[in-house]
Amino acid sequence: MISKQQIKTIHSLRLKKYRDQSELFVGEGPKVVAELLQSFECIYIAALQSWLDANQTAIPAGVRCETILAEELAKASLLEAPQQVIAIFRKLPDTLPTAGALQSELCLALDTVQDPGNLGTILRLARWFGINHVICSPTTADVYSPKVVQATMGALGKVNVAYTPLPQYLASMSDEIPIYGTFLDGTNIYDAPLTSHGIIVMGNEGNGISPETASHITRRLYIPPYPMGSPAIESLNVGVATAITCAEFRRRTLSIEHCK
Amino acid sequence: MISKQQIKTIHSLRLKKYRDQSELFVGEGPKVVAELLQSFECIYIAALQSWLDANQTAIPAGVRCETILAEELAKASLLEAPQQVIAIFRKLPDTLPTAGALQSELCLALDTVQDPGNLGTILRLARWFGINHVICSPTTADVYSPKVVQATMGALGKVNVAYTPLPQYLASMSDEIPIYGTFLDGTNIYDAPLTSHGIIVMGNEGNGISPETASHITRRLYIPPYPMGSPAIESLNVGVATAITCAEFRRRTLSIEHCK
Repeated sequence: MISKQQIKTIHSLRLKKYRDQSELFVGEGPKVVAELLQSFECIYIAALQSWLDANQTAIPAGVRCETILAEELAKASLLEAPQQVIAIFRKLPDTLPTAGALQSELCLALDTVQDPGNLGTILRLARWFGINHVICSPTTADVYSPKVVQATMGALGKVNVAYTPLPQYLASMSDEIPIYGTFLDGTNIYDAPLTSHGIIVMGNEGNGISPETASHITRRLYIPPYPMGSPAIESLNVGVATAITCAEFRRRTLSIEHCK
Repeated sequence: MISKQQIKTIHSLRLKKYRDQSELFVGEGPKVVAELLQSFECIYIAALQSWLDANQTAIPAGVRCETILAEELAKASLLEAPQQVIAIFRKLPDTLPTAGALQSELCLALDTVQDPGNLGTILRLARWFGINHVICSPTTADVYSPKVVQATMGALGKVNVAYTPLPQYLASMSDEIPIYGTFLDGTNIYDAPLTSHGIIVMGNEGNGISPETASHITRRLYIPPYPMGSPAIESLNVGVATAITCAEFRRRTLSIEHCK
């Protein structure tokens, strides 16, 4: 049995304002909840009896758990298709990469990536490509919004996320940190020298990288369409562009390691 | 003024059954309609006066056009956020690649790609990478469904699509046509020889490539996570996997052309 008050709390966490105030967020479904339990402090679980029975050992001691019926789940859930379990977790503090990480790792920076699905895809990609830090402009979607949490498929918590104004952040970088971005007039990514550390900036769905952020980019890249020189009237979706860019950075590093 | 009957016709085209019976489909919004007008016979347009005024020269002679008000548009539209114009187009017949095309071009085959957004992303990618044919299993989402039409952003009509049972289709290929697919136990795509022609099979969101289709795949590839050997517990989204795979095929061809 779940109280009306509890349902109200869950629904309030749909809004960034309440997530920020409470430092809490909601995750749903067996796969996402199982992944989030590994990285976040869980403070509440409401689930079908069958889920609770199957997951007793995965639930940390002291977490408030409630058995709920399917019709209660439907009322409490923020999803169109509720899935067995709803949990409330405590957000992690924003974590920017250390100076050491910047000197040795690839990081992603997102300039106003607004679509929750795209942000979720990019966090999954970051995890796949072993990228530990995603630095977001304050105008980028909130990683703790329900749509992003579900779209990350559990990559949240495996990747460090921080929100900070990008122009100022990038301006503070030393010259040793290459800052990459993709542009229509950049150097073909397949011809450009790529490093195994630095920051890759990805831009907004409609407008690309903002001029203020772009002015700090030191290595302008271009993803060529095929055949080369065909009119790039269509831009690539930002998730897809991130995938192609990260894959090429990692391919270079892998082939260097391969030749050692 | 739009009639109730016309609204009913538009809404009926949400269903594959009616699209198949009538051979018609719906496209909406200035960008998508402008692109579809280039490739498909248009039989009906309902739009705000402002759109009609701005697009008079783009509307082919003889197309039935109606001015509608914003509130009528909201009723007629299949989108959550209606956008100025709704049009009905005639579907194109399914077009499989010719024997000549198979011998000289890369084609994509989709084995039960069910999410309309993923299918839309893949059609956009096909256009970006100059891939002219996408061959779909009958269990793949319908390219003429409203969600796919909107997600393709107009790539529909620029790429030939056909639906056919993949196991039989692939079985009919001569040995000269390499058939690629990605698997967890395939050869690292960055080490594997890749040709500039052949068929690349992409699988279902949850289950990958079906065993019946997989048995016809002659070149098994693998997209490595980074660092190499890290547990690939997360699979890549099929749109993203298609992007990485096509980018690598095209990179090879581009670098060969580059060296000529």
